[in-house]
Amino acid sequence: MPLWFNRCYAGGVLISDLPTPCALVDLEQLERNVRRIADKARRLGVRLRPHVKTHKCVEIARIQTDLHFGGVTVSTLAEAHAFAAAGFTDITYAVPIAPQKIAEAADLHCEIDVLNLLVDHSDTVRAIEETAASRGLVLPVFLEIDCGGGRSGIHPDDERVEQLARRMFEADSIEFRGLLTHAGHAYRARSRSEAFEVACEERNLMTALAAQLRDLGAPVVELSVGSTPGMRAIDDLSGITEVRPGNYAFYDATQAAIGSCELDEVAFSVLATVISVQPEYGRAVIDAGALALSRDPGPVHVDPDCGFGRPVAVEDQHPLPGLRLSALAQEHGTLAGPGIEALRPGTLLRILPNHSCLAAACFDRYHVLRGSEVVDEWRPVRGW
Amino acid sequence: MPLWFNRCYAGGVLISDLPTPCALVDLEQLERNVRRIADKARRLGVRLRPHVKTHKCVEIARIQTDLHFGGVTVSTLAEAHAFAAAGFTDITYAVPIAPQKIAEAADLHCEIDVLNLLVDHSDTVRAIEETAASRGLVLPVFLEIDCGGGRSGIHPDDERVEQLARRMFEADSIEFRGLLTHAGHAYRARSRSEAFEVACEERNLMTALAAQLRDLGAPVVELSVGSTPGMRAIDDLSGITEVRPGNYAFYDATQAAIGSCELDEVAFSVLATVISVQPEYGRAVIDAGALALSRDPGPVHVDPDCGFGRPVAVEDQHPLPGLRLSALAQEHGTLAGPGIEALRPGTLLRILPNHSCLAAACFDRYHVLRGSEVVDEWRPVRGW
Repeated sequence: MPLWFNRCYAGGVLISDLPTPCALVDLEQLERNVRRIADKARRLGVRLRPHVKTHKCVEIARIQTDLHFGGVTVSTLAEAHAFAAAGFTDITYAVPIAPQKIAEAADLHCEIDVLNLLVDHSDTVRAIEETAASRGLVLPVFLEIDCGGGRSGIHPDDERVEQLARRMFEADSIEFRGLLTHAGHAYRARSRSEAFEVACEERNLMTALAAQLRDLGAPVVELSVGSTPGMRAIDDLSGITEVRPGNYAFYDATQAAIGSCELDEVAFSVLATVISVQPEYGRAVIDAGALALSRDPGPVHVDPDCGFGRPVAVEDQHPLPGLRLSALAQEHGTLAGPGIEALRPGTLLRILPNHSCLAAACFDRYHVLRGSEVVDEWRPVRGW
Repeated sequence: MPLWFNRCYAGGVLISDLPTPCALVDLEQLERNVRRIADKARRLGVRLRPHVKTHKCVEIARIQTDLHFGGVTVSTLAEAHAFAAAGFTDITYAVPIAPQKIAEAADLHCEIDVLNLLVDHSDTVRAIEETAASRGLVLPVFLEIDCGGGRSGIHPDDERVEQLARRMFEADSIEFRGLLTHAGHAYRARSRSEAFEVACEERNLMTALAAQLRDLGAPVVELSVGSTPGMRAIDDLSGITEVRPGNYAFYDATQAAIGSCELDEVAFSVLATVISVQPEYGRAVIDAGALALSRDPGPVHVDPDCGFGRPVAVEDQHPLPGLRLSALAQEHGTLAGPGIEALRPGTLLRILPNHSCLAAACFDRYHVLRGSEVVDEWRPVRGW
């Protein structure tokens, strides 16, 4: 039997039969990851509206929303259309909408129960008012708050928060839904306790801001927060109505490094084949490069030598401590370190990506493993 | 007329009608880029075998190979299949082949004139010999040399170069084609003159190595080199038979920074819409994030503040010096700098990506512009 033929199990399709690079989803681990967060959301008394941008995959969202109210969060209108077509009727498009996309979003809102929109600028509020009024619609809209991530959203101290909340509450063509935030800076945490601090701050800031707006006569129905590090760390979400974590279905090497999960909880990996071995120079090359893993630099704030993903054993995903994915070209991943001698052309490895959301988006299909068997093939949504 | 409606021209499809983010190919600029390198290859007396991994697009490869011998270079078997199906019959798969893929490659070789393979390890040579012999085939194979890039390929001083060359030359089931290298370190150049040095070194090293092998009785038919920075810089390729630049069809912000092109020669850009503006905090957000631009860090060795791509004007691609694409999330690109005040939600921008090969691979289609008109839609190959 040739060396590269790592036969992993006896029945059904073999991992070693899969073309590389390809995307593997460990279904049992995914189910455990999903169940833990679903249970936690129930225990903390918040609605779970998972962000499906991580996987863009209807089958996974069905597992995530099982026993919950069925709402999902999306990052593109393409996702919104695909999930609506698959029967999801309560969707939040959690990126500030471009004025040019309001008409398309309004059409989709009319086809399902609700498509919540997000804004942080008066021009966009005006554009929504105009579109909704011209069609005799009332469109549901969240105001985005920047709770410290420094991306989109209005700073909570900014007077525009009150202005826009009041304006939307008073507009005939807008149903002001409440406030939404994403503590993106939770990813800059170095441990679960640091993520806990960020999540507490996010919660406190949002509940205080909602109280302030309610005092001013702008009723805030929903308070929507969430990131995977925060949701894994937090133990009290009093006052919050909804959480939107996404990455927790898969996790990745970054989440493991910052304490959101253990490495063996990562449910998404990229299968790769060794194509070049130069032990004299301490390196080997796999056929998974930047187009299969993304160029996400990973948790360099925790581990400057983290590399571009974590190589693990193909059979059971155990760590290969000697190996480091030190460089990526388009179709080449360079492995460095003392584990090189054990590799030969044809050896299969799995790579736990630094950022599973970006790595998963490299693939048109996921090979679904239950235990050691390839049981299904799922197709994610692509594009915008 | 709303502010975001940047009407660019009067007839046909408008850029402003395109959904964002989307990929734009400036056809006239692409034709100029292609013609310059095609002319140069003829002038220098080398065959041009363009690397199609940059665009993965049959229409563009047809322009590149016009008036040349018609050969192309690919980085995946998926590209090889797609280009073979489109009528390309002379293809080099310029990534060391995984042993598991040899049978598939042999099948494709039988369907067209030639599919050249690449190796740098004796295990792979043996696997090719076995597959070819079992089918009564003779498979054409290049030996990869590492001329300084430090990725795949054997170091020129390594005794395995002679061993493998001789073995392949003597094998009944292999047609030893010659030596192939890619001076990936040309991308670490800071100017065209530094790229010139790298390209001269690449040429000299390869011609010397070929002479040495020929003296030892291992005939080297082909000497294949090439990178876009090297091809733009070099003025003499004596002794080299073939060049394989790829990026020159599009160029990108990195090539401009290291002196391979001017910014206005970049023929690929990503159209994006401003979705959030916070001038008080010196930032705005566009709807092109890591899934539309890739997370390529760009030419940080030349400009540590280069950001994740170069924002340019939508109409004529002129630079917007105040603006910097300072951060990327999955679907958010953060703009920083003094140019923010001029932006409003809905403003269209183009982004010249740091690495057009990775950015182009984010899209399922390219919108092709001739002058200011959208004249076509091309579909790149995906997957492996």
